[in-house]
Parts: sequence; C-alpha cells; structure tokens
Amino acid sequence: MQIMLDTLKQWIDITDAEWQQFSAWCHKKQFTKGSILWEAGKIPEEVYFIEKGGVRVRVDAPDGKIHTLHFAFEGSFIADYSAFMRQQPAAQELEALEDTLCICLPRKAIEWGYATLKDGQKLGRLVAEGYFIYHDERILNQYIRTPAERYMQLSKTFPNIHNRAPQHMIASYLGITPVHLSRLKKQL
Amino acid sequence: MQIMLDTLKQWIDITDAEWQQFSAWCHKKQFTKGSILWEAGKIPEEVYFIEKGGVRVRVDAPDGKIHTLHFAFEGSFIADYSAFMRQQPAAQELEALEDTLCICLPRKAIEWGYATLKDGQKLGRLVAEGYFIYHDERILNQYIRTPAERYMQLSKTFPNIHNRAPQHMIASYLGITPVHLSRLKKQL
Repeated sequence: MQIMLDTLKQWIDITDAEWQQFSAWCHKKQFTKGSILWEAGKIPEEVYFIEKGGVRVRVDAPDGKIHTLHFAFEGSFIADYSAFMRQQPAAQELEALEDTLCICLPRKAIEWGYATLKDGQKLGRLVAEGYFIYHDERILNQYIRTPAERYMQLSKTFPNIHNRAPQHMIASYLGITPVHLSRLKKQL
Repeated sequence: MQIMLDTLKQWIDITDAEWQQFSAWCHKKQFTKGSILWEAGKIPEEVYFIEKGGVRVRVDAPDGKIHTLHFAFEGSFIADYSAFMRQQPAAQELEALEDTLCICLPRKAIEWGYATLKDGQKLGRLVAEGYFIYHDERILNQYIRTPAERYMQLSKTFPNIHNRAPQHMIASYLGITPVHLSRLKKQL
C-alpha cells in the first residue's frame, strides 16, 4: 500500500502510527479487465485507490447508450463519490479497463479518518477540491473548448490514454464520434 | 452577517469568539443589477456569500456566445472557485441578476479559517463536497436527463428562478433554446 501512503503524504502529514491504524481499515481487491468495481443502482460503500491498472466511469443512458464520463489510473481515487457522500444509489458504474488492483477504503475507514487523523478533514477537503476542479474543467470543456482542444487536454491529463482505452470510449469522453476522433488524431 | 453565521452553523461548530475573529476578516459589498462581481481573466481573490439577491455565473465562449453555467441566491457561496483555488485567471464571470448584497471572504479570511478555526478544514471539505455534488449532477444531466427532467430539477433547486432570471439565461443553463423552454413550460 506504499503508493497510497506516498500519495497521501503529498497532501497531508500522517504519522507512522496513524498510517498503521488507517491502512488496517483498508483491503486490496483485484478486478479483471472488463469487470465492474461497483454497479449502478447500489449505494456505494467504498472508495477505490488504484494501485495498478485503470478504470472508466460510465453511465448508461435511458436510450441504451453507454457514455464514458471519466478515466482514472494508478495513483488516483475513484468512486461515484457524489452517490457515496449522499448515500444514494450510484448513477455511475466503475469498469476495469485492464486488470486492476485497488485498495478499497470502506465508508468506515473514511469516517474514522475524518474523526481521528490529525489532518483527516484536510485530506477530505483536498480530495473533494481536486475532484471539483476536474469536474469544473469538464463542464467548461463543452462551452469554451473545441474538440481539438479537448483532445489535447485529455492527452495531457492521461498521457498514455490512447494505448489504454479503446477509441470509442475516448470519443465518448470527448463528446465526439469515433470517426471525428480518428480525423482529429491524423490532424494533430 | 447573521445569515452567514446561521449557514456555517448548519455545517460546523463555531464558537462566538471564533465567529468574531472570522467575520472581522470579511466585509460587505453591494452590487447593482447587471454589474459584475468578478471579471473573467482576473485571478479571484475573494469568495462571496450572498446575503440578499442573486448571481449568475456565465462564460463567454470564443464564438461570442454567452452561456449561463450556474445560478446562486441568498444563503449560498459563489465564486469561480476552481480558479480561486488554483490561483489562475477566472474563466467564469459573476454577474448580479438583481441588486445583490454580498459578504466578501478574501483569500486571507479563508486561509485564516483553515489554519485557526477548530472546524475550518471540515467547513472547507463540506463546501467543496457540496459544490462537487452539484457539478456532478450538472454533468450527469446532459447524459441521462431529458430537457423536461432538467427543467423540473432546476425548478426544485431554485424554486423562484422563473421570476428572478430572464428566460434566455434559464434556457442557456438547461442547454436548450428559448423557444424549446417556452414549449416545455406550457407542457408541464
């Protein structure tokens, strides 16, 4: 779990004793490529830290279309965090893009962290702020950035994305057709 | 500033002494209808708590179109919070929908709050989480909700919106044309 500790230490001060106790609440889970980490419709009871692998967050629209909302790779937390916080059924489904090893943080671990870690609330603030900034960019994208600009931003955020996610998912994430995406890749 | 104190108390414990010190960092500002609270292009140095009135958050697209991203009324905080946190030029402009009285929280007030208030980090976490949930809904809207569902959700979130914001802003917020909006209003 060293990679999670290193990530936390970028944000907060955490003592060895705190880490010992906190990590005791967590456990590892392996997901094979294509499997679902958490289904839509179920109230999320854990947050994942990706130790190895990748995840896409998808939403299944009423018309049967599957949309790719987000990607996440090693070193990031992922969940339908909104549903997790509100304790409501997830609207978003988490799907392993490749064989993926996660550290699961059950709700109790997170609540314990807020109550007990000296910098627990600060950690929660920084995680929520990071998510917020990412989402805010996602909303702005559709208003002020062209598909080419969105494509370049994606390649910057996830440098290896084109080898790790199928083209139709990337196109869906960018809000364009796969044909448009392949034209963009040739142009840029 | 009682309304801000009441709002904070819904989220955290704050003593009278803490409030005295915190509120001393803040000051009131009056904005006339149509005026700009904070311009795009300038690094945001304050967050606003709306004591009376309403604000729309707009973004001016490169093609000259003005889009309405968000609304905020009495009892809420508003800012280009992403730009505020990253200390980057604002992409979003805040515009008073009506004569609006705000409490300004300068960056120093917020930093002081994190460092000094017993529950300062928790407050920051809850504000960021609230924003995150709202943004997450905004992203989901475009994928899984019809214009009619988005309209009903807006009316629930901002009950008096149709008397407080012009139709073209509401249509822009919903991602539909004003003609589509007026058709929807007749149907529902």
